[in-house]
Amino acid sequence: MADDRRYKVFTLKNIQAPTFTMTALELKEYINFTVKRVYFITSPKGEMKSGNHAHRAEEDELFVQLQGQSTIVVDDGHGLEDVVLSGPQNAISVPHMVWHGFKDMSQDCVIVAITSTNYDPVRADYCENYEEFQKLLKEE
Amino acid sequence: MADDRRYKVFTLKNIQAPTFTMTALELKEYINFTVKRVYFITSPKGEMKSGNHAHRAEEDELFVQLQGQSTIVVDDGHGLEDVVLSGPQNAISVPHMVWHGFKDMSQDCVIVAITSTNYDPVRADYCENYEEFQKLLKEE
Repeated sequence: MADDRRYKVFTLKNIQAPTFTMTALELKEYINFTVKRVYFITSPKGEMKSGNHAHRAEEDELFVQLQGQSTIVVDDGHGLEDVVLSGPQNAISVPHMVWHGFKDMSQDCVIVAITSTNYDPVRADYCENYEEFQKLLKEE
Repeated sequence: MADDRRYKVFTLKNIQAPTFTMTALELKEYINFTVKRVYFITSPKGEMKSGNHAHRAEEDELFVQLQGQSTIVVDDGHGLEDVVLSGPQNAISVPHMVWHGFKDMSQDCVIVAITSTNYDPVRADYCENYEEFQKLLKEE
């Protein structure tokens, strides 16, 4: 992936302990923000998708595919791309001004999101219109 | 639970979105430390257990039972107690000097640990002997 890419895909190391599998993230290796919120996406149903937005200026996120599979659709200025994530070994950092949404989540999909903001119900930081997102990118 | 209890059990709110279940933790409501590491316990096998130690002075943790069930055995100075955790609605904060270990993990058990330290392979902060832990408690 070229250096001008804003998102980054990681392959995590799974440690096989005698009685469980351990997957550990030393956060300084993955993010450069203070974690304010952690949220979990489980039990997908219907269209098996979520999201499709970018954060304008504030929210940076790290997504961990902890179980099952999903495809995250991202655009960091290079057009829409599909990135397939498999658990428990994939994570992807998605800073603000990267369009992102999940699709094709498997029945057993578990996604952990580690984020830089507390949730704002006003959603002022959310850009949920892809055409507007492309305009914002050009104005940067 | 009395005020002198060092651990705290939480019931998390699950939001039923149209295409998934969302469980969100605004961390300031659960912990008072900066998150340095996140680790995951999945695929239990054999004795279906993990842990059994206390952290002497440094590591504070929040455990989220994200899927399945487990029993966390804790001792915060009131003797060993079993706390049953069910996912995705239970979490427990376990500060340093609280003995803790998991047992009876279900096959589908997924535990997320949110912690205050980077991992130290020397494990100087770990007290893994229960008798020593009881002595340390008395010396406090």
